[in-house]
Amino acid sequence: MPLGEEKNGTCDRSIYVNNPHLDSMTDDILYHFNLGTSTHDLAAMFGDVKFVCVGGSPWRMKSFTEYIAKELGLSDPNAEYPNICAGTDRYAMYKIGPVLSVSHGMGIPSISIMLHELIKLLYHARCTDVTVVRIGTSGGIGLKPGTVVITKQSVDSVFEPRLEQIILGKTVVRCTELDGELAEELLQCGKELAEFETVIGNTMCTLDFYEGQARLDGAFCSYTEEDKQSYLAEAYAAGVRNIEMESSVFAAMCKLSNLRAAVVCVTLLDRQKGDQLTSSHDVLNNYQQRPQALVGHYIKKKLNASKKS
Amino acid sequence: MPLGEEKNGTCDRSIYVNNPHLDSMTDDILYHFNLGTSTHDLAAMFGDVKFVCVGGSPWRMKSFTEYIAKELGLSDPNAEYPNICAGTDRYAMYKIGPVLSVSHGMGIPSISIMLHELIKLLYHARCTDVTVVRIGTSGGIGLKPGTVVITKQSVDSVFEPRLEQIILGKTVVRCTELDGELAEELLQCGKELAEFETVIGNTMCTLDFYEGQARLDGAFCSYTEEDKQSYLAEAYAAGVRNIEMESSVFAAMCKLSNLRAAVVCVTLLDRQKGDQLTSSHDVLNNYQQRPQALVGHYIKKKLNASKKS
Repeated sequence: MPLGEEKNGTCDRSIYVNNPHLDSMTDDILYHFNLGTSTHDLAAMFGDVKFVCVGGSPWRMKSFTEYIAKELGLSDPNAEYPNICAGTDRYAMYKIGPVLSVSHGMGIPSISIMLHELIKLLYHARCTDVTVVRIGTSGGIGLKPGTVVITKQSVDSVFEPRLEQIILGKTVVRCTELDGELAEELLQCGKELAEFETVIGNTMCTLDFYEGQARLDGAFCSYTEEDKQSYLAEAYAAGVRNIEMESSVFAAMCKLSNLRAAVVCVTLLDRQKGDQLTSSHDVLNNYQQRPQALVGHYIKKKLNASKKS
Repeated sequence: MPLGEEKNGTCDRSIYVNNPHLDSMTDDILYHFNLGTSTHDLAAMFGDVKFVCVGGSPWRMKSFTEYIAKELGLSDPNAEYPNICAGTDRYAMYKIGPVLSVSHGMGIPSISIMLHELIKLLYHARCTDVTVVRIGTSGGIGLKPGTVVITKQSVDSVFEPRLEQIILGKTVVRCTELDGELAEELLQCGKELAEFETVIGNTMCTLDFYEGQARLDGAFCSYTEEDKQSYLAEAYAAGVRNIEMESSVFAAMCKLSNLRAAVVCVTLLDRQKGDQLTSSHDVLNNYQQRPQALVGHYIKKKLNASKKS
């Protein structure tokens, strides 16, 4: 299937599911969330959601919820934020006001299961005008560690903005385009915060952390330091500024379901200078708070603007 | 690279890493385990490991450790089994006697990160003669739900026993062969237990739970029930008895590192009859204990045999 053949309408920004079979199902079990349409009133639970932030680590997504509650003035010193998916350990989910926070594990398959169920959840809850941001960690190329990269295009291992998915044994190519306007708005938020460097660049999405990202420190390695450096230099020349493992399917699925989407990842190291994460726990922890600070600022700004209008 | 070009010796069954760069590293940080060679005495912590059981869910791997402790007569009513990877939420790891239990999340990328670090851990700890078993859940084809499938071959979406990995932007094909003798021994354990049906069959490994497994209930679906049924029938004709999301890279990486490996998954439903997991929590929970009962029986038998000899 050529790029962009799967189209979405753009008029009212409601959530699209592209599946005629769903209408004939009397019940829809969102198995990996431990939620379902016959067991939960999804519209009552999630109907007001306007922002969804997703990230690999369950702990980070809980801490994002605590952070955003404080930022939005919704926090209560005695408040507990219960994990909405408490009956399963596949994903963790938290909600405060219009902001939903969901973990997705590591890699394309793990985030893809979560997104199928998240998109159905938002659809069943009849949410409209939802913005989804992945806040994550990554390896940087040619950037000072701690720099935040907002993804322009999510590209594959040969630097093309596409995702190959296999459906019924056949390869389907999907477009990994993200919302350019949203990326610019987020860059502006980075400038306003002025607490760390923020750039827009391409993000390479791989299926593997070690060999797939040209690391020299995995259990297997069949290439030299020189091979690694020349691959990373090629990536840099193609506009790649960071490497992670979820952005392509995130971009493709959000596009197919008419969700405004962005990817905001901090770089934990410069891959041209090394492979191992040798920075201290505190330094890495500080870096990981940067995407959430940036996205928190964006959400606050948007909510304040909508109150005024 | 053709199938099987990456060879291992087979004489002393020590763990192989195939990476010349590791020798020149003064320290090796196993980042996603929160362990490292300079911060932990890996040989003292893990040198006696003979069996490693891996599975998607951290809860299930903790419960496996409690179960195996009881089975091996190593349990203490007051014992706590601390999570060895407590400093991170990427994976959970538990150990009791010679049995290590590690979670791997969902999908090929997630288990691949874990296996790179596990193989290096076993190598640094100088372990020998290690057997690794994935105990998991899957969708069955033409089997009564609750049947346990021991994988003969892990096959891809066109039913070939191979894994395509992308290294420096180029496709490398790896062999997904598992240990045939170990599979037969495990089948024998199933017969001895006689508590549930156990079969040997091929396992299809996919990158996606919904469209990649021909489900009709994802957020997107572009095919008919008839298309789905004919794809599953083709899979069945090729010897596929269950579908999951980790076995191919598990088989390939264990083979490359000279680890005796098996995949033992219970089928939670018959995919020819449906897509959603509608069985009760209790029934699904009972099913999930079957692979651990089978592998527990195998480990007990092996340890008893080695005591006698």
